[in-house]
Amino acid sequence: MPTLTDLSQLSINGDRLQRYLDNLAQIGGLPNGGVSRLAFGPEDLQARSQVRTWMEGVGMQVRVDAAGNLIGRYPGLGKRGALATGSHIDTVTVGGRYDGCLGVLAGIEVVQTLSERGIRLQHPIEVIVFTDEERSVIGSKAMVGAVTEGANRYERLDGTPIETCLIRVGGDWSRVPQARRSPEEIAAFVELHVEQGGVLENAGVGLGVVTGVVGQYRFRVEIQGRPNHAGTTPMDLRSDALVAAAQVVLAVHRLATEMPGEQVATVGYLTVSPNATNTVPGKVDLRIDLRDLSSTNLTVLIARLRRDLEAIALETKTAIVMEEMLHIEPTLADPGIMAMIESVCDRLGCAHLRLPSRAGHDAQEIGRLAKMGMIFVPSRGGISHSELEYTSPEECAQGANVLLQTFVALDHQM
Amino acid sequence: MPTLTDLSQLSINGDRLQRYLDNLAQIGGLPNGGVSRLAFGPEDLQARSQVRTWMEGVGMQVRVDAAGNLIGRYPGLGKRGALATGSHIDTVTVGGRYDGCLGVLAGIEVVQTLSERGIRLQHPIEVIVFTDEERSVIGSKAMVGAVTEGANRYERLDGTPIETCLIRVGGDWSRVPQARRSPEEIAAFVELHVEQGGVLENAGVGLGVVTGVVGQYRFRVEIQGRPNHAGTTPMDLRSDALVAAAQVVLAVHRLATEMPGEQVATVGYLTVSPNATNTVPGKVDLRIDLRDLSSTNLTVLIARLRRDLEAIALETKTAIVMEEMLHIEPTLADPGIMAMIESVCDRLGCAHLRLPSRAGHDAQEIGRLAKMGMIFVPSRGGISHSELEYTSPEECAQGANVLLQTFVALDHQM
Repeated sequence: MPTLTDLSQLSINGDRLQRYLDNLAQIGGLPNGGVSRLAFGPEDLQARSQVRTWMEGVGMQVRVDAAGNLIGRYPGLGKRGALATGSHIDTVTVGGRYDGCLGVLAGIEVVQTLSERGIRLQHPIEVIVFTDEERSVIGSKAMVGAVTEGANRYERLDGTPIETCLIRVGGDWSRVPQARRSPEEIAAFVELHVEQGGVLENAGVGLGVVTGVVGQYRFRVEIQGRPNHAGTTPMDLRSDALVAAAQVVLAVHRLATEMPGEQVATVGYLTVSPNATNTVPGKVDLRIDLRDLSSTNLTVLIARLRRDLEAIALETKTAIVMEEMLHIEPTLADPGIMAMIESVCDRLGCAHLRLPSRAGHDAQEIGRLAKMGMIFVPSRGGISHSELEYTSPEECAQGANVLLQTFVALDHQM
Repeated sequence: MPTLTDLSQLSINGDRLQRYLDNLAQIGGLPNGGVSRLAFGPEDLQARSQVRTWMEGVGMQVRVDAAGNLIGRYPGLGKRGALATGSHIDTVTVGGRYDGCLGVLAGIEVVQTLSERGIRLQHPIEVIVFTDEERSVIGSKAMVGAVTEGANRYERLDGTPIETCLIRVGGDWSRVPQARRSPEEIAAFVELHVEQGGVLENAGVGLGVVTGVVGQYRFRVEIQGRPNHAGTTPMDLRSDALVAAAQVVLAVHRLATEMPGEQVATVGYLTVSPNATNTVPGKVDLRIDLRDLSSTNLTVLIARLRRDLEAIALETKTAIVMEEMLHIEPTLADPGIMAMIESVCDRLGCAHLRLPSRAGHDAQEIGRLAKMGMIFVPSRGGISHSELEYTSPEECAQGANVLLQTFVALDHQM
């Protein structure tokens, strides 16, 4: 049986990890270098089959749960709760080759590094391919018992019912509640992922220790003014919905730039009616996206936003209605896991910094059930969801080594 | 021969004017009470034929010039230059029954009031139906020699060439330059029109003495930012085209509300790309409409606007390009005609106020050739270009009486 010192010398095989990434990228690969592998589509099914083969090849027992999650399990020596990792292999319509895939394939590579040396940890290791991360997040939600809405909520854009989709991947909508895990089954969940932003690259740091996955609110705002002739209507008789909307856009921007905290706030969608050069705008519809790691801060910001909108409506003589479209609670990373990742980085000589994840991940859901940590590696140019997505082989390997050593340390400590 | 005192007692027949308005409104009349009589369409042709019959019936000689303008002439006793009036009988897609028509029909009623008593003025009177006021303004432009662009510029929305259109109404594109009038032919032009705004109604005043028709600029503004993930892109790394656009909208609004002058300024059109809730806007296209009676003031405002746009581009890290789409010079009313209209109003006991016209009119073009005046009567609720357009029979009659008496006074004085 290897000692902790032996284990702490282990490294994953970076070339092999690149080959895994290369091979997976060919399934749904586009001529421009991007990948199109929509969940439940033929490319997704082919990729799942390939990943399953790889899992089995490195000595994992593989099963598919009712939500279609593909779960590879590498047995441990005695402890019950698993050290779990994983991510997703579905992509957006035109995605890159690292988003999600790196987390899954690094997990397999970590297990292979152990299994080819005949090493088992005290804890079992689970590598999980979560179902449909890019749209419904049904896989990780089901695992924490958060699939509480009806089947319609999970319908595909092309109209395919979720029942049909789950059958394709070996799941079963009627048994989705059985995909729920109990907290004892997962000792810790650590997800390796590309950053999808430019913080690490700008800081010149190779690894990010994620402090949590931000909570997100989306609001729909409708501003009702009065459409009128842009020539004959004096300024003081106007009720201009776009002048009000402009103030709303700037108020939302100030929420992120002038209020304390690390939140981001965006108006990404805005339409004007009737949208004619010679007509005072009668109506504007816009949508607000607000994200932060602190629930309390989000509540404070939303209260401030509501006060701002009331003042703007009064000043511009418009009617403004704001309605919540989406609310996802933030999930904080476990402080012990964060500290452990940092100490692994220090030992491996890898520069690191702490940062929140402002994009959603499977870890956000799993973190509601188990202690969670996330490891980010840099995205060149901060670009993701694009064929330009890129993380260097060295950075991928470093992320996978940190994942491996974090599991070794957790196994020893827990 | 009647004395000036006799003439000054004359009144038009208000009931008859209403019958003219009622009958014309039936041509292209819509079930909801609106009127749809697009220039050069079958309803426009039928309405022109009807108006021609009415003109001839009150003793006018009628001709159609090369630009399709329908010109009724009631001979004078000796002076050469005409006292001219008129407006248009084409409508927007769904228009009202007063816009344009009141000016034409009041002109006919004025002539009929004279002709049924066997009265002629020293000056001939011309009542003109200008061609296509609602879109190309080709009729009044041709009369002042301002049709300088190629035929394509005057093509209809449905693709019909202007050559075909002019043939339909008795004009001839190849001879359009011959429609130009010489300044000696028109001693004065006075147009009666509904206000199409709410100034008179709000002031509780029955008649407006127009100080001029405002000049107008339209600008196309393109704002280029960088589209990016609304979650993962930190605020300080963004180049948000909509945040810049919001500042532009408010800068345009301030041009009219905080700078000296009576200008109006509007952003009526704005589109966002890619217009997705979770994407920082990469591009915004918007259009600015700016109007004022003072050319000098417009120049000052545009210089200020350009400085504002430069500052906004710098602050928001966006690229902003502004391009002129339209520029129409303002036309001032003749001070002598304005004073004469006011003295007529005072004599008739009709409350009046001065105001600029912020919508375009045929008088704007004709005023570049001849001394021009305009008389406004109230629009209920300030509404025009709508089936809800309404001016009471009493207000219509009062406007026509002021037109008649202004002609009588001009005839005596000029």
